[in-house]
Amino acid sequence: MIQTFHITPLDQQLRPLLQEKIDNLTKPKGSLGRLEEVALQVGLIQQSLSPVLQHPQNIIFAADHGIEEEGVSVSPRDVTWQQTLNFLNGGAGINFLCRQHGFALKVVDAGVDHDLPYERGIINKKVRRGSRDFLHEAALTEEEVSQCMTYGSEVVRLCREEGSNVLSFGEMGIGNTSPSSVWMHLFTGIPLEQCLGAGSGLDSAGIRHKYEVLRKAVAHYAGDGSPLDIMRHFGGLEMVMAVGAMLQAAELKMLILVDGFIMTNCMLAASRLYPEVLEYAIFGHQGDESGHKLLLDWMHARPLLNLGLRLGEGSGAVCAYPIVDSAVRMINEMDSFSHAEITKYF
Amino acid sequence: MIQTFHITPLDQQLRPLLQEKIDNLTKPKGSLGRLEEVALQVGLIQQSLSPVLQHPQNIIFAADHGIEEEGVSVSPRDVTWQQTLNFLNGGAGINFLCRQHGFALKVVDAGVDHDLPYERGIINKKVRRGSRDFLHEAALTEEEVSQCMTYGSEVVRLCREEGSNVLSFGEMGIGNTSPSSVWMHLFTGIPLEQCLGAGSGLDSAGIRHKYEVLRKAVAHYAGDGSPLDIMRHFGGLEMVMAVGAMLQAAELKMLILVDGFIMTNCMLAASRLYPEVLEYAIFGHQGDESGHKLLLDWMHARPLLNLGLRLGEGSGAVCAYPIVDSAVRMINEMDSFSHAEITKYF
Repeated sequence: MIQTFHITPLDQQLRPLLQEKIDNLTKPKGSLGRLEEVALQVGLIQQSLSPVLQHPQNIIFAADHGIEEEGVSVSPRDVTWQQTLNFLNGGAGINFLCRQHGFALKVVDAGVDHDLPYERGIINKKVRRGSRDFLHEAALTEEEVSQCMTYGSEVVRLCREEGSNVLSFGEMGIGNTSPSSVWMHLFTGIPLEQCLGAGSGLDSAGIRHKYEVLRKAVAHYAGDGSPLDIMRHFGGLEMVMAVGAMLQAAELKMLILVDGFIMTNCMLAASRLYPEVLEYAIFGHQGDESGHKLLLDWMHARPLLNLGLRLGEGSGAVCAYPIVDSAVRMINEMDSFSHAEITKYF
Repeated sequence: MIQTFHITPLDQQLRPLLQEKIDNLTKPKGSLGRLEEVALQVGLIQQSLSPVLQHPQNIIFAADHGIEEEGVSVSPRDVTWQQTLNFLNGGAGINFLCRQHGFALKVVDAGVDHDLPYERGIINKKVRRGSRDFLHEAALTEEEVSQCMTYGSEVVRLCREEGSNVLSFGEMGIGNTSPSSVWMHLFTGIPLEQCLGAGSGLDSAGIRHKYEVLRKAVAHYAGDGSPLDIMRHFGGLEMVMAVGAMLQAAELKMLILVDGFIMTNCMLAASRLYPEVLEYAIFGHQGDESGHKLLLDWMHARPLLNLGLRLGEGSGAVCAYPIVDSAVRMINEMDSFSHAEITKYF
């Protein structure tokens, strides 16, 4: 049985009071732009005129992908486990970003094709050693989808118990732009060729090959087209786990920072199951992967940053955190016109 | 006599080594996008493979503007001194941003039309109580321009002595989008109507009036069209002081974070005097003021952020600082492929 979630739409009763507080800060009305929008959203999520961000954590779900065997990625499968270890050593891109912005980092083995040293702190949620090759068969079984969703939600509940109210999600999985592109195509109806790109560095011949593989895989798909069935057929393990994690975070009224192309597709899938999850999401970054801008536009999502990142790992979401922090500081730390005795701007 | 500056173009000899170091960090080549560009620029400015950011400071230059008497701003002149005091009290927008990102804040009276309490830490560089109304006469004299440039450079030298190697500049001055729009028009040749906007909140009738005032002022201008003469004729005091400050910062090989519409115009003016100043500049934010995007495009400047801010005070530049910090941390803290024993991505 797939876990169900109880995600409530944001209670809008506090909105006028939040807006009034923001409008009375010592600045021309609206002049802090996106910071004001974010402050309003976080205030509504927390149902507070003085929201706080507590113990931010970035969770990386790592897994391998059967489709990688079809030569759709420029990087070899071994990079998944090697880079997963690199997260523990502190030398990866996400590590310096987490240190900089005070994020704890959780690394979750969702399905890496390697024996990982769990005693070093990797969370063992391995469902299987990589998804199946969806060119030839379904990437996952229903049981595996269910396990992934449950495991994802367990990790988030742990974070909540540790005191977190803001989470970002990232991934590590060589080949995972391929299932992401297929999810995007099938969920949005945008033509497949517009949903795929270079991943970690394909050239144009490589992209053509990737397109051919994905086109064939989609043509062979004979499922019922439901969100869960699309997630099952095309995988991957870390992506489905992220979907479960996002849904659990929204149920617990935590703020969700959405990373790049792959995590945006996970949020898209999550929102197909529970549309209200989007009210808890802030999109951190428009990545460089072709299709990401298109997808964000389709979702009416406006990411905070556009820095040309295409690293994954949660890097774009964590990079955006200081802006969310600024928004919360704004509403808590700025003086009001009445208190500061300043002629109110119009 | 106007102060002269000795600004050297960046020595490019280190570029291949910097690029090699960046390309060998444990990430797909180029996958950290703008962070990689910023790291390269800061490395070249500091001539170091391990650049560091030291004691960042935001300097706000405050002054009043004669043109304000023509009804070109929705906010009354008194807001300039009131808000300048608010900076001291810690309740303004720039204050929480400075606290968040570890910036010291210097507030400089360049020409506020009010007796300010210098004993409370405002730096007294008052040249006169507001610029003259450039609809009827030149805003400044040559002597005043010279004083502003010198004072601006003095404040920056003080920051250098205090150990800073990265500065952002902001402004407070009711009416100062008007001289900024005229500078932009005269420096770039972009039609005046495309160079102006709502400032702190004009409606469309207000913007039409502002356009008429500025159009007349430009029509009456009979100077020699040189950068210094344009700066002199249209002011304002805080803007010319910022130009001097930017040039001094570049001479001292400091990193300059450029804020919104007004500071971008100051960087434009500075670059008309010394084109090399641009090599030391990072544009923090594309503001919401009409014309700013147009100006940035004209300058081939790509700001790091686009958050719809239109507050001034240096807020957009300080908001962008964590991204610059990320870039520097990237080059210093990320592991290399060879050391981490990871199969190199392509």
